[in-house]
Amino acid sequence: MPKEKNFYLGKKHLSAFSTKGENFCKLNKDHLDFEINLLGERLSTLQEMIFAERKHKVLIILQGMDTSGKDSTVKHVFSATNPQGIRVVSFKAPTEEEKSKDYLWRIHKETPSHGEFVIFNRSHYEDYIVPTVHKTFPHKQVQSRLDDILAFESMLIREGVTIFKFFLHISRKEQAKRLLERLDNQKKHWKFSLSDLTEREYWDEYHEAYTKAFRYTHQSEAPWDIIPGDDKRIRDYLIVKILVDRLEKLKPDFPDIDPKIIKKAKAEADRLLK
Amino acid sequence: MPKEKNFYLGKKHLSAFSTKGENFCKLNKDHLDFEINLLGERLSTLQEMIFAERKHKVLIILQGMDTSGKDSTVKHVFSATNPQGIRVVSFKAPTEEEKSKDYLWRIHKETPSHGEFVIFNRSHYEDYIVPTVHKTFPHKQVQSRLDDILAFESMLIREGVTIFKFFLHISRKEQAKRLLERLDNQKKHWKFSLSDLTEREYWDEYHEAYTKAFRYTHQSEAPWDIIPGDDKRIRDYLIVKILVDRLEKLKPDFPDIDPKIIKKAKAEADRLLK
Repeated sequence: MPKEKNFYLGKKHLSAFSTKGENFCKLNKDHLDFEINLLGERLSTLQEMIFAERKHKVLIILQGMDTSGKDSTVKHVFSATNPQGIRVVSFKAPTEEEKSKDYLWRIHKETPSHGEFVIFNRSHYEDYIVPTVHKTFPHKQVQSRLDDILAFESMLIREGVTIFKFFLHISRKEQAKRLLERLDNQKKHWKFSLSDLTEREYWDEYHEAYTKAFRYTHQSEAPWDIIPGDDKRIRDYLIVKILVDRLEKLKPDFPDIDPKIIKKAKAEADRLLK
Repeated sequence: MPKEKNFYLGKKHLSAFSTKGENFCKLNKDHLDFEINLLGERLSTLQEMIFAERKHKVLIILQGMDTSGKDSTVKHVFSATNPQGIRVVSFKAPTEEEKSKDYLWRIHKETPSHGEFVIFNRSHYEDYIVPTVHKTFPHKQVQSRLDDILAFESMLIREGVTIFKFFLHISRKEQAKRLLERLDNQKKHWKFSLSDLTEREYWDEYHEAYTKAFRYTHQSEAPWDIIPGDDKRIRDYLIVKILVDRLEKLKPDFPDIDPKIIKKAKAEADRLLK
């Protein structure tokens, strides 16, 4: 496992970042599966402790181009955890009510409570990326959204939210492969949308906008991790490893209760449980 | 597997219902584990299809005495499913805002959307059971809540919600064992509350109130299944079996899209994916 900072964009452009991941992970297939399971179990325990403790709040933001594996990450990385205490929010096109508020309103509503893990499948970053790519908003107005987002996330951090931001980074070739797979496999038809093909024409514009957003909103307490996404197994491994490493630092534990209450309860129990 | 109706209370009193489950399940331990895994995988596929199809809505209500295994059921029965599309709602003591509305307001808000599974860990039934047991409300007022609940659930059914209602049925002796376990195991301390001991004194009153609620609110499309809960493995097996059997009847499937769109997309893809 490399030093964490290797997942950070720094001054690089997103297009210069590898989508392959061999540099990050030299494990063979079986060894990877073994590690993913082991780390998955640990993640599950950490989540249970955080849920029991009701002290920390965890927000996990997933962004990526179409077919980059956001849904698949939710399924594979989090399926071993307890559904109680984990909430997945997928942000689609806003409703009429949502449109009549500011763009952070629907996001704010869904932030985690104490003990809770919330996964954002897409997020407020779409509200910067899409208008920037398609130039649907005045440049200045869209630009200031990065300030809003930075301020919003800083506030969440100060209020006790641990924020993970993962960009699932695939190559244009890998996307082509996955789009064709959706067309060829009937079970995946429902995931296909014609707009995936038209958006693909804006590949470079997306990478440009993402690069800018990552540089602007990367904070040591809410870093952007660029996850090489062409190999699904390496992607899952890197994400679960980053989650476990950072959550361990919170040192969560099953909370204890006052020994006096235990003593009292045992006396009561003796009486009642005869 | 017995005929489903064997899980129904009918004219019996809850206290006459076995908490053991040997009558329902004669499988040995290994065979049970095998069946639970197999059914769990099928449940996971059914959930994925329902999520993809966005046609059905599924509501699963869990009720039971303290320590009856509601949390554990959520963890063991649903942990193999995709967290995307499953939402667990635990109803605790109502907030000030919730108290100032009617008691079904916070329940209604959390009902499932198309494609969604929602699990209620405790539910509106508490609003009948607790005031009945503790006589904190005028009898007539509490009584009419069963009418409200029946009307509310009937409306949900007509609006396309598939409702499961499971009562996790444990013996008084098994509860004593589990309460002591919570006191003895530090990892379980957080689950212990002194009120569990005081509520235990109302065991018969709870069973009386539940019996009445089940008889009144049992409908063929929202039946109450009384699940023998002393053996956790048998409990999980019976719940996953009932879920799978009834969800199969909905005949969910991965939705297809217009072949013309597929054709158009393939032509587009050929052009774009070169």
